Amino acid sequence: MKTLKVAMLGFGNAGSAVGRLLADKHDEIMEKYDCDVKVTAIVTGKRGSVVDPEGIDLSKVCKAGATGAFPEDIRGLGAVSALDVVKNADYDVVCEMTPLNIFSGEPAITHIKEAFGRKKHVITANKGPIAWAYDELSQMAAENGCMFFYETVVMDGTPVFNLTEHTLKMCKVTEVSGILNSTTNYILEELAKGRDYDSIMESGRRLGFVEADPAMDIEGYDAAAKVTALLNVLMKAGITPDMVERTGIENITADDIKKAASRGKVIKLLCSGKLEDDGRVTASVKPVEVEMGDMLASIDSTTSVVSITTDLMGKISVIEHAPEIEQTAYGVFGDIIRVVEGIQQ
Amino acid sequence: MKTLKVAMLGFGNAGSAVGRLLADKHDEIMEKYDCDVKVTAIVTGKRGSVVDPEGIDLSKVCKAGATGAFPEDIRGLGAVSALDVVKNADYDVVCEMTPLNIFSGEPAITHIKEAFGRKKHVITANKGPIAWAYDELSQMAAENGCMFFYETVVMDGTPVFNLTEHTLKMCKVTEVSGILNSTTNYILEELAKGRDYDSIMESGRRLGFVEADPAMDIEGYDAAAKVTALLNVLMKAGITPDMVERTGIENITADDIKKAASRGKVIKLLCSGKLEDDGRVTASVKPVEVEMGDMLASIDSTTSVVSITTDLMGKISVIEHAPEIEQTAYGVFGDIIRVVEGIQQ
Repeated sequence: MKTLKVAMLGFGNAGSAVGRLLADKHDEIMEKYDCDVKVTAIVTGKRGSVVDPEGIDLSKVCKAGATGAFPEDIRGLGAVSALDVVKNADYDVVCEMTPLNIFSGEPAITHIKEAFGRKKHVITANKGPIAWAYDELSQMAAENGCMFFYETVVMDGTPVFNLTEHTLKMCKVTEVSGILNSTTNYILEELAKGRDYDSIMESGRRLGFVEADPAMDIEGYDAAAKVTALLNVLMKAGITPDMVERTGIENITADDIKKAASRGKVIKLLCSGKLEDDGRVTASVKPVEVEMGDMLASIDSTTSVVSITTDLMGKISVIEHAPEIEQTAYGVFGDIIRVVEGIQQ
Repeated sequence: MKTLKVAMLGFGNAGSAVGRLLADKHDEIMEKYDCDVKVTAIVTGKRGSVVDPEGIDLSKVCKAGATGAFPEDIRGLGAVSALDVVKNADYDVVCEMTPLNIFSGEPAITHIKEAFGRKKHVITANKGPIAWAYDELSQMAAENGCMFFYETVVMDGTPVFNLTEHTLKMCKVTEVSGILNSTTNYILEELAKGRDYDSIMESGRRLGFVEADPAMDIEGYDAAAKVTALLNVLMKAGITPDMVERTGIENITADDIKKAASRGKVIKLLCSGKLEDDGRVTASVKPVEVEMGDMLASIDSTTSVVSITTDLMGKISVIEHAPEIEQTAYGVFGDIIRVVEGIQQ
């Protein structure tokens, strides 16, 4: 029997859901893959860390949820930093789930480099590294013989990167587009219902659709990072988020939406990227008017879509319907399963 | 360098498009996989057959298109039957693309069994065998150490079977639904525009959306075979098309559509299947009313969709937008590439 030791950097909503899923599926993985998946390190920002090379008792840790204090009697509880863990702990694969800095991708990029330097596999749920340093990181992974997976970065566990790699063999991606930011999708929909901006922001915060500082979403930075990640992986674009032509929804008024509706149209924040004739990939995030009967118009609230056009398979779209945190967790879990499969070979 | 010898049973619109794609991509496959893919047999119903263990000159054969006579100077031209080829010809993988008998799956099932009996790999673009004999055939494939692929059976090369196998690891499918028949989709749309039935059928035939005998589509037999194939593979349903609760669109009138529209609804022929509490899988094909703003309402004309619900990843949908014959061909081509990868291991 093999063993796979997992270090988790970050253990908030998504991280603790990954922990629960690993606990639930531990025996099934063991039976199916003859592999004992153990979590040997968990690092949080405010709750301290747990490091135990023998494997942390996930059922105990998960009881603390996404914010509660870890049980005091748990072995290995301390105050080790993410950088310490990634540099020194005993693990085979690290799951990078620390908070995102959307303007630099750090400190996640540094964590990932340290792991590859130690020839450890890496899974990132953090879009920063894929948006800011994909080429460098994927090259480091290859040079060190490491696996590097990041399905959750766009649309949780919905197959987007895996879809293109495993099911569209020999296809060349020529165009990518999608609706990838729930916050702006929600705001535009509520504006269309005639609600005023302040009350939308208030109910959005209550529902968890709107962050304390909503500028990252509203001004299109989050969408720009996601489309950059898509284009870097699917089209080898070699771009960074600051190269995306970016217009947010901050200047869209209820009146704009009403006027669009009078023409049978709906305003959506659309991400897109295209292979130009000169071989460059150009990218944009901007509000566009789509026909009311169009598939894009049906993508409401937290639902999202990516459309991928290839030379051999034309255009296909993948929709994730109304995901919960479990779908984010599944993205990381599915990547862990891929590592389990990879170490069997 | 490896060699993969392909026998093609059927060389109509889709088959000849596969031939063109194999000719176009021959050198790229050779470079990428170090494998020489040769077509060693082509069987047609009315144009005779070509059998050449050294490899048929595809550029010559493809010039005949989907219906023209094969060039007389081509080596190996004769009158061998599909059954002869599958039993006796020199090949590693057979592509089953003979005309479908939707009520039995024959003679395709027999062809496939003969191939497995000779320990040859099988790709079928023919939905009959997957709808009528999936369990038996997949068991024969396993017993004989053969690969068995059928991506094209539902939505051409759009990843549906591969998606679930390669990208939704450890997920259990609990529900499947979709709009999978273009003919009925086209007819319902045109009826909604106020056109009369006879003129729709006439223009549909001209556009290639309506078959000479449209009953298979209109009465839901085609959709029933497709949903059966989906459920047999994705949910191990072990059902046959006659077990699907089936209602076609033959009794839907322009008036029904108008009344639905007055309630903000559109009529679509929906396929669906569900895992019941007792472990059985139930399936239906029937006209249903969907909300005008719903994603399903946006699936127009030849576009199609499959939605898959799993325990771990919730609901995702995959849409194929307005496919051409090249997308059907890609499904078979992608399966051939999978065989090429499989024989490397």
